[in-house]
Amino acid sequence: MVNIHKDGFPVVLGHEAAGIVESVGPGVTEFQPGDKVIPLFLSQCKECRFCKHPKTNIRIDAMSPLDSRFTCKGKKVYQFSGTSTFSEYTVVRQINLTKIDPAAPLDKVCLLSCGICTGYGAAVNTAEVKEGSTCAVFGLGAVGLAAVMGCKNAGAKRIIAVDTNPDKFEKAKVFGANEFVNPKDHDKPISQVLSEMTNGGVDYSLECVGNVEVMVSALESTVQGWGVSVIVGWNMHEFSGQPIKLITGRTWKGALFGGFKSKDGVPEMVKAYMNKKLMVDEFITHNLTLDQINDAIEMMKHGKCIRTVLNVSPQ
Amino acid sequence: MVNIHKDGFPVVLGHEAAGIVESVGPGVTEFQPGDKVIPLFLSQCKECRFCKHPKTNIRIDAMSPLDSRFTCKGKKVYQFSGTSTFSEYTVVRQINLTKIDPAAPLDKVCLLSCGICTGYGAAVNTAEVKEGSTCAVFGLGAVGLAAVMGCKNAGAKRIIAVDTNPDKFEKAKVFGANEFVNPKDHDKPISQVLSEMTNGGVDYSLECVGNVEVMVSALESTVQGWGVSVIVGWNMHEFSGQPIKLITGRTWKGALFGGFKSKDGVPEMVKAYMNKKLMVDEFITHNLTLDQINDAIEMMKHGKCIRTVLNVSPQ
Repeated sequence: MVNIHKDGFPVVLGHEAAGIVESVGPGVTEFQPGDKVIPLFLSQCKECRFCKHPKTNIRIDAMSPLDSRFTCKGKKVYQFSGTSTFSEYTVVRQINLTKIDPAAPLDKVCLLSCGICTGYGAAVNTAEVKEGSTCAVFGLGAVGLAAVMGCKNAGAKRIIAVDTNPDKFEKAKVFGANEFVNPKDHDKPISQVLSEMTNGGVDYSLECVGNVEVMVSALESTVQGWGVSVIVGWNMHEFSGQPIKLITGRTWKGALFGGFKSKDGVPEMVKAYMNKKLMVDEFITHNLTLDQINDAIEMMKHGKCIRTVLNVSPQ
Repeated sequence: MVNIHKDGFPVVLGHEAAGIVESVGPGVTEFQPGDKVIPLFLSQCKECRFCKHPKTNIRIDAMSPLDSRFTCKGKKVYQFSGTSTFSEYTVVRQINLTKIDPAAPLDKVCLLSCGICTGYGAAVNTAEVKEGSTCAVFGLGAVGLAAVMGCKNAGAKRIIAVDTNPDKFEKAKVFGANEFVNPKDHDKPISQVLSEMTNGGVDYSLECVGNVEVMVSALESTVQGWGVSVIVGWNMHEFSGQPIKLITGRTWKGALFGGFKSKDGVPEMVKAYMNKKLMVDEFITHNLTLDQINDAIEMMKHGKCIRTVLNVSPQ
């Protein structure tokens, strides 16, 4: 009997990465050793009714962390999100992997494995931001910055970046934000501030913080009639909102991995990057090695980095 | 100075009606005496940015109940929702009125002034129910029954009618419901019951009760990935929900007057009724006169009627 704690440990963490196929197991048809690949925490099997539905990337995955192939000193180790990438080698299912352009630089496109697609896709796939529109993005971490870039690439005219840390505004400008609001500068609710700035509210808002109060503020910041608000951040708490905000014509949605069907979407995003249609390098503020991971996490906790790329190659 | 209570009284109530133009004031260009008309509690001016937007029927109306033309014994009387139809005569603005087919029977098409359009449009305009889909309608008053009819006319395959009063199921069958669930028959949450009936949830749900807990249940009853839930009922309380329900691909919307641009939509609905594409007579369970209005309201309170039509013609 294996000794696995019910809290999910021991586990190999990490899910945002890129790598090269070292070997393939029986039944693997899509990959060969040497392929450049990106692991997919959100699998795509192309066979279930969810994968076959044109409008969603969500599916029900029967994989349990217990299905992990990892052991350490004879004891089972969990797999994280079907990937486990804070590791020199990992073992993943075919449906958790996608092949990318062999010319793509792995130390850059690894970021397309989660955060950038999550924010960018929330704007272009889920909110379906239209040309000439007004958008507000709440939270300017990598996901929020990618959402800003999504709004920009979709042709939004006004992109209002909202964060309580004004140090983030310079970076947001790089990705296309052209107005900046720090909620700490205002006594009024931020939805009221945005409503006054935009004659009644923004066309689209994207919550990239993961805070239930911000989710509701983001909804209330959209214009009645046609406003669309997308929850991108995660939170397990409950939100409280007023039905009238929806009855007066707003739409509230959510997105996981930016609505991209992962196996299909990631190679397209890599292609967009290679064709200079998408910024990736601009998210990288630091490059470290796997043994410096705790330093990287400390920087993240204190908002000192956007993305730190860890080199996990065997030394 | 007029003596008007801040609670909105004295007022002439009533907003769902049909009538004939008796006379027109200065500046009225669209109507002539003798026109058959339906009053619109939700105005349509065709000039503001909301009216000009193709996707919404919501607008900001500057009319105050104080703009009423009514007086009684020299004292001002409020106007209700720009209409005030529990009355032999009323005075409305041109933007609160629409002209209908002169052949339409007023004692039937009066119901197109609110409830039927509200429920029907929530299904066809707001949820945009697709052919072959599975729908759940919560609450089987006139609005919910109209939502059932909307689902049916949009080609839904399974229409699950949900009500704690099973006496309503027979009527729901008339409008197209083909499955019936009484939450009182189950110990489980109704969203779980519906999920088990439908292999994961319905494609569309419509909340026609006006209860915040039912609104959240209706959302949770939709399938992850592409489920759409529409709030149709009114409630001023707050709902509490989990972000994960949206992040996993559900869409939450609301509708007022079924998303119909009122002046344009109501004559079309009258036309559909005249062409036998829409049921209206089936909603009418009683016909009374204006002096029996308190009896009508008692019946409504006790769920004894679907719609009671009051004859308000001068005797």
